[in-house]
Amino acid sequence: MAGFFITLEGIEGTGKTTQAARIEEWLQNQGRPCLRTREPGGTAAGESIREILLNADYTLSVETELLLIEAARSQLMDEVILPELDAGKIIILDRFYDSTTAYQGYGRGLNLDFVSRINRFASRQCVPDLTLIFDLDVKTGLERARKIVERANFKDRFESETIEFMERARKGFLEIAASEPNRTRVIPVDSDPETIWEQIKPILEKELK
Amino acid sequence: MAGFFITLEGIEGTGKTTQAARIEEWLQNQGRPCLRTREPGGTAAGESIREILLNADYTLSVETELLLIEAARSQLMDEVILPELDAGKIIILDRFYDSTTAYQGYGRGLNLDFVSRINRFASRQCVPDLTLIFDLDVKTGLERARKIVERANFKDRFESETIEFMERARKGFLEIAASEPNRTRVIPVDSDPETIWEQIKPILEKELK
Repeated sequence: MAGFFITLEGIEGTGKTTQAARIEEWLQNQGRPCLRTREPGGTAAGESIREILLNADYTLSVETELLLIEAARSQLMDEVILPELDAGKIIILDRFYDSTTAYQGYGRGLNLDFVSRINRFASRQCVPDLTLIFDLDVKTGLERARKIVERANFKDRFESETIEFMERARKGFLEIAASEPNRTRVIPVDSDPETIWEQIKPILEKELK
Repeated sequence: MAGFFITLEGIEGTGKTTQAARIEEWLQNQGRPCLRTREPGGTAAGESIREILLNADYTLSVETELLLIEAARSQLMDEVILPELDAGKIIILDRFYDSTTAYQGYGRGLNLDFVSRINRFASRQCVPDLTLIFDLDVKTGLERARKIVERANFKDRFESETIEFMERARKGFLEIAASEPNRTRVIPVDSDPETIWEQIKPILEKELK
């Protein structure tokens, strides 16, 4: 694997997507070949799967939700991540399997061992080189996420998540960080985007040199 | 579980769907509450998933295919199979997890242990009361299936499967039958639909009495 694989993780409202764009811009300014994408989605089939996941007319069970997320991931690995890493690109991925562990495992209560096994199956055993875990107290995160939703006039089924659910997910992210310190860095995001970027930049400079 | 759960399995062109309709008609004539459905599909979300599976514009990997089939199954269990069985109905299901074992496991070569685990996860550990495995030599099956496809002017990605793939799937179905003799009955289908029905009817009369 010639490239470098960066994932951004964390609960809603932590500003992951803003920082993912910032990382992409920073790499592009240095002329380094990179590719930014997101989960679920990132392929034609994956975007169709994303539509099913976000369709409020479907009352998807927790198990169906997990299987659809993994299906979109599997397709993204085959079509994009694995070939682009082989081609030497730096991949910036907005959510990856740690989100599944945190949301579907810790949050929804699905069996963590099974979630780990299906994560490995869908990701083809591929492990990120660097995972930035954006951490924020749940209440602030949900308030920020709600503002984004209102701005985009975008109503989806994740909107109604409870604070308790998000607390469990946040705990999941922090436990992943504690158990895999080599690839993970926790970024506290209770400040403005510029200050957060100043925390991220030195990590990238060190890991990508 | 108050109802009775019948699944119909086998390679393409074995006349499963015709016999599923026949079973339904026979039960209805006796006034027995029953419900016939199919996989993948059978729910609104499941039919959307089926469209992705059959969309020839998407080159789905074997792993993505498995995950989507299991997602559709999971939703069908929650919305239809489990509540209808609880309500006492006889379910007639055209393909269930044995097809996944035979096609994705034996046919595509995915790890059989993982396929079994994800089958159990998606089906909520629910095991059919009776599984009819329709058996036919692969060449005859494929010729029959092609005629159906041409008649319906229906082109999908399963059309181009090779004989070798179908041979492996057929072997898979027969090994399932050998390893689970209590719930499975192999029905040789190298005759006309009426003769096949005459083989099925006594099995139903015995199992459903």
